[in-house]
Amino acid sequence: MTEYFIGIDGGGTSCRAALADGNGTVLGRGKSGASNILTDPDNALKHIAEAASLAFEAAGLRPRLSSASATLGLAGNNVGDAVSYVTARLPFRQADIVSDGVIALQGAIGDQDGAIGIVGTGTIYIIRHNGKLRSIAGWGFQVSDLGSGARIGQLALQESLLAYDGIHPMTGLSEAILAGFGNDPEAVVDFARLAKPGDFGRHTPKVFDFARQGDAAAIRILKTGAAGIDEALDAVNGITGGKGRLCLLGGLAALYPEYIAERHRKRLSEPLADALTGAVALAVKAYGARLEVRA
Amino acid sequence: MTEYFIGIDGGGTSCRAALADGNGTVLGRGKSGASNILTDPDNALKHIAEAASLAFEAAGLRPRLSSASATLGLAGNNVGDAVSYVTARLPFRQADIVSDGVIALQGAIGDQDGAIGIVGTGTIYIIRHNGKLRSIAGWGFQVSDLGSGARIGQLALQESLLAYDGIHPMTGLSEAILAGFGNDPEAVVDFARLAKPGDFGRHTPKVFDFARQGDAAAIRILKTGAAGIDEALDAVNGITGGKGRLCLLGGLAALYPEYIAERHRKRLSEPLADALTGAVALAVKAYGARLEVRA
Repeated sequence: MTEYFIGIDGGGTSCRAALADGNGTVLGRGKSGASNILTDPDNALKHIAEAASLAFEAAGLRPRLSSASATLGLAGNNVGDAVSYVTARLPFRQADIVSDGVIALQGAIGDQDGAIGIVGTGTIYIIRHNGKLRSIAGWGFQVSDLGSGARIGQLALQESLLAYDGIHPMTGLSEAILAGFGNDPEAVVDFARLAKPGDFGRHTPKVFDFARQGDAAAIRILKTGAAGIDEALDAVNGITGGKGRLCLLGGLAALYPEYIAERHRKRLSEPLADALTGAVALAVKAYGARLEVRA
Repeated sequence: MTEYFIGIDGGGTSCRAALADGNGTVLGRGKSGASNILTDPDNALKHIAEAASLAFEAAGLRPRLSSASATLGLAGNNVGDAVSYVTARLPFRQADIVSDGVIALQGAIGDQDGAIGIVGTGTIYIIRHNGKLRSIAGWGFQVSDLGSGARIGQLALQESLLAYDGIHPMTGLSEAILAGFGNDPEAVVDFARLAKPGDFGRHTPKVFDFARQGDAAAIRILKTGAAGIDEALDAVNGITGGKGRLCLLGGLAALYPEYIAERHRKRLSEPLADALTGAVALAVKAYGARLEVRA
């Protein structure tokens, strides 16, 4: 009987699955809804099974989840209770849950040493050195994740208030942000008081847009963010010795390179594959090898 | 019958009252508990009356609150509902509620033009120019109040995580902060996620302490904070034309001068009087003058 391997890339908005054979050849893919194991573990379980079943169907196979071995890359993997709850209820023969960063690293750099920086709403750097994994940053926007979408958006709101008060010159960026709040600084403050990372992050594309048009405040904010990323990449290089692939991933990955230091920019390369491909490769590595040993 | 005037300086931890005659001569003072009109207006009312009664007693007088005219400087004065509720229930003959900043300004610079910067858990600058009041900053630590105790404490926590990750060098400050959280970065993050301004601010004295000992991270954080204060004072000077008294008040006022720019440091002077004295002076100005006109 053929052994099947499932990779899952799950997050707050969608869940993607890939089905592979023992050689790691992807046979089919499937996609379903949100799979946030922290906020809604039962729905996450439903969508994980659904995406996996769709991957079987896309491969022209009748879904047999209980015969498949899976590696799931899920945000919230570091919260023990949620992981225990979900792991105990997964429909697969055997499965492990790793972080979304670990499958992204595997996809981006394959089996070699190297590092990725995921620059999206948050920022986290994941390094494989001498085969061992390590992450830095990624602690959240309140006290970490410099250069992240959340931090850039927050700096943009701050900038609009500095301009409102005449502490900084008013620029197009600040005008646009204030206009978005009815030119009422109190509305900016009320928003910021309760804003989640994604709420701040929604203001970040504006910063890149205005920076492209030469807006001094937007450029200064992005330079501040890029300096935070440069420092973190220096620390990454301190671990890797500057060896192996270095990839930026995440929503801001394509926007940042022109702002970061030349020493890092020239080291960047495109990811080899996506996180879903990384997940299925990890499933084959984890369970394919073990099955061989048993056989 | 002698007209009496009451000044109130009320906040989250205590309520102070001063009683003056029509010449503004302070006859007695009193102190009672918290008077936060937002979180507990009834208790605030109780403590306002209590402090005022004690001021009468300290002057050797039987309390006659209903005969006195009062100016109350209270935090939360910008929240209309709370002000209406409290104003309608005050025990005085007539009274007005102004911000704690306005009585501080009156106390610090008297009747002349000038400005104050209140640098405590938050930061706000209040300016009197050609007799008109204006404030800048003071929007809260999420998107304003650069250099405030809350921001400095937040930067110190951030610094400890940057050091933990090897992004910045580990210094005594970061070591001390991490040790305070059991050397568990997750504990720092959990704290920061829910921290109120005062929670962050409690880490700020450590930053000044370590900076005095030459700690590079602490000095960098204070330079960042001082740069925010310098920029705001530049904006203040833009309004005042650099004329009139300029006073720093608040919990960090005595600590900051050595870090701020020379152009501002040389302009600083000691406040003429405290906020309570400012409140009673405003009461005499507001109601003493009016009574004279009527007489």
